[in-house]
Order: sequence, then structure tokens, then C-alpha cells
Amino acid sequence: MEYRRFGNTIVVRLDRGEEITAQVKEIALKENIKLANVSALGAVDRFTVGAYDVTQKKYISNTFEGVYEIVSLTGSINTMNGEYYAHLHMAASDQTGHTVGGHLNDARISVTCEMFIFVIDGEVDRFRDETIGINLFDFR
Amino acid sequence: MEYRRFGNTIVVRLDRGEEITAQVKEIALKENIKLANVSALGAVDRFTVGAYDVTQKKYISNTFEGVYEIVSLTGSINTMNGEYYAHLHMAASDQTGHTVGGHLNDARISVTCEMFIFVIDGEVDRFRDETIGINLFDFR
Amino acid sequence: MEYRRFGNTIVVRLDRGEEITAQVKEIALKENIKLANVSALGAVDRFTVGAYDVTQKKYISNTFEGVYEIVSLTGSINTMNGEYYAHLHMAASDQTGHTVGGHLNDARISVTCEMFIFVIDGEVDRFRDETIGINLFDFR
Repeated sequence: MEYRRFGNTIVVRLDRGEEITAQVKEIALKENIKLANVSALGAVDRFTVGAYDVTQKKYISNTFEGVYEIVSLTGSINTMNGEYYAHLHMAASDQTGHTVGGHLNDARISVTCEMFIFVIDGEVDRFRDETIGINLFDFR
Repeated sequence: MEYRRFGNTIVVRLDRGEEITAQVKEIALKENIKLANVSALGAVDRFTVGAYDVTQKKYISNTFEGVYEIVSLTGSINTMNGEYYAHLHMAASDQTGHTVGGHLNDARISVTCEMFIFVIDGEVDRFRDETIGINLFDFR
Repeated sequence: MEYRRFGNTIVVRLDRGEEITAQVKEIALKENIKLANVSALGAVDRFTVGAYDVTQKKYISNTFEGVYEIVSLTGSINTMNGEYYAHLHMAASDQTGHTVGGHLNDARISVTCEMFIFVIDGEVDRFRDETIGINLFDFR
């Protein structure tokens, strides 16, 4: 992984074999990011994405392996109790064009990933909403 | 719904039961947005998306219900005849990862939605293109 | 195609019959863009997208024709050896909501395309990685 920061925009290259969520965390900690929007494209060969069933209060996740292009990877970097927090969703397409996606647990880069992190001058924390079992943006 | 504005970036949390397009309009009117780009992720349990058949000049729309994660929600806020206008497209994935999408008519939040509205200092209106039956960006 | 630049954001309308990658190049050259992030929505009636098989070092591409809405179109504009370079991925949904996508080779607009180009003050070139057969971000 390598990146360069241009003002409030960080341009990133992730490399073959790296795991996306771990790399995002590393950059956020190094750059002391408190609030940002993330957008990326690239290619992955193994990833786990899920959907949250609010009635069961759990994620149902699936792991996909093979040749996949990231067609959208979008999300938030912010904090919970002042500590790093990220929330990313991803969709990826296989060699037939078929597309799968969901809440991103982890994804391994097969070729490269080109990521843009748009740092926002501000802070938004999170609180636990016990009713739905999820950590939400806290603007208080 | 709650949001906070940091310079030209508005960070939004939509809540369970709220409808996305209505909330975007409310924020745009409160913040007097004339031009913006929108990006969001989240989870929905009922939404209607369509595709425009230019030969028939109409949208063919489908409603989906169940456990879905928004994998991409992107679009424009601007004006038509000086009044609020929004154009949003969305893709969402179910618990198997299967992804559906299209032009967004409406979508109900099941868990949360984290939205970033990037306000642009400028104005772009729309005009009606009768040949294709759609309202297009007007740069005149 | 028409566009207007507001500071570092370029707002674009592509028109029926135009090809997306050719238009992005035209704008980038006219505006002398060295580094940018791209996000768009719209509708297309013919497009070719692929996925890169790193073991074979080649893209497997598919062409789709019909009524499709662009649900995500994201990517990078930068340079290779100082010359224009773009890397775009796209996903699109048909009239049933079914979504396909991948690395974008070309796409023809059927209705319109609304594109936001976020120009970044800086430069990132590319180098050829012969091991994987792809041109990667070069931060040296």
C-alpha cells in the first residue's frame, strides 16, 4: 500500500494480497482521520459481504472467491468513543458481469485498488442503538 | 433524520422507517442547496427502482421488499425552473449478495443510512427534452 | 456533451449516442486534468465491461445491450508518462433491476449521463507492473 495526501484528499493504491479494511484503518490512524468519505475501485479475489437482518439483529454474510472487479466501494470513516471506526459497503462483478455485494467484512486485493479518501474537517462519533443493534452516527 | 454541515459537506443519518427521497428534499430545502453530489450507504427494506425505456418514453419500475443493503446510492441535487430537483440511482444487495438497482423512486430505511452531500458553489438548472421525455442539465 | 466547471468540480451532461470514455478524455484534455475522481449516473443502451484474470493476465469482457440505468460509475483520471489516463468501473441495471458490471471499456448513452469530476490539486502517474500486467498508481 502506498498513498499520498493532497490537502483533504488522500489517493491510495492497495496492492495484491492486501486486505482492504485493515489498510483503510492503517491510513486513517496514520493520518489521524476523524471524519471522511471513501470511494474506491479495483479487483479482489476473495471477499465477505453481508446484509443485516434487523429482526434477528445479525448479519447474514457470504464469502465469494474468484475473479471480481469492485464496481463500488463506498463508506464512512469516523469515530466511536473517539476511536477509529469504518463502515464500508461493496459491490463486485465477476467475469460474466454478475454483481454481488453488501456490508463489507473483508476483501483481499487480487490486482490493485484505487481509493479516494475525502477527509472532512469535523468530527462525528457513534452511539449504540440497542433497539436495532447497530452503531449509528451521533451528532450530539 | 439528523445531519450536520461542515463547510460544503453535509453528513446525514437517516433513521428506520424514513423514506430517502423525502429526506433528501427536506435537507436540500433547509440548507438551500442549488447544486450537489450525493453518495450514501445503508440498509432498506422496501424500495422501487426503474429503468427508462427511451423508445416508450417511460420508466419500467420494480418494487423489492426484504433485507437489503444499499451498495451504492449516487446522484445529483440541483434545480428545475429554480425549484428543488433530485436525481438518484441506487443498487442494493440481499442476504445472498444478489444485487438489484436502477433509478430510485423511493426507498424505506430499515436500519440506517449514512449520506454525504457535497454542495457545489454554483447553479445548474434543468430543461425538458421532449424528444427523449426527460429533464436534462441545462448549462445555459 | 456540455459541462461547467465550478472551482475544482466539473459538472457534466453527456447526451444520447455519445460514448462515455471518449467524452471523459475530451473533458480531461480540455481542462488539463492531471488527477481527479469521477462519479456518475445515467442510462446506456450498449456497454462492454470486463474482469481481469490475473493468472491469465487478460480481461474477460462482455457486451450488454438493452435498457440499462448506470447505478454506479466511478474511477480515476490521472496520467501515465505524463499523458492522459482514465480507469473507470461501472455497474448498470436493466428493467428487471438485474445488475451487471465491471471494468469499463466503452458505453453508449441512451438518455443522459450526469457526471461529477472532482479535480484534485496534485499529480499521480502510473507505472507498468509486469508481474500482474496492469498499470498502477505511481507515487514516486
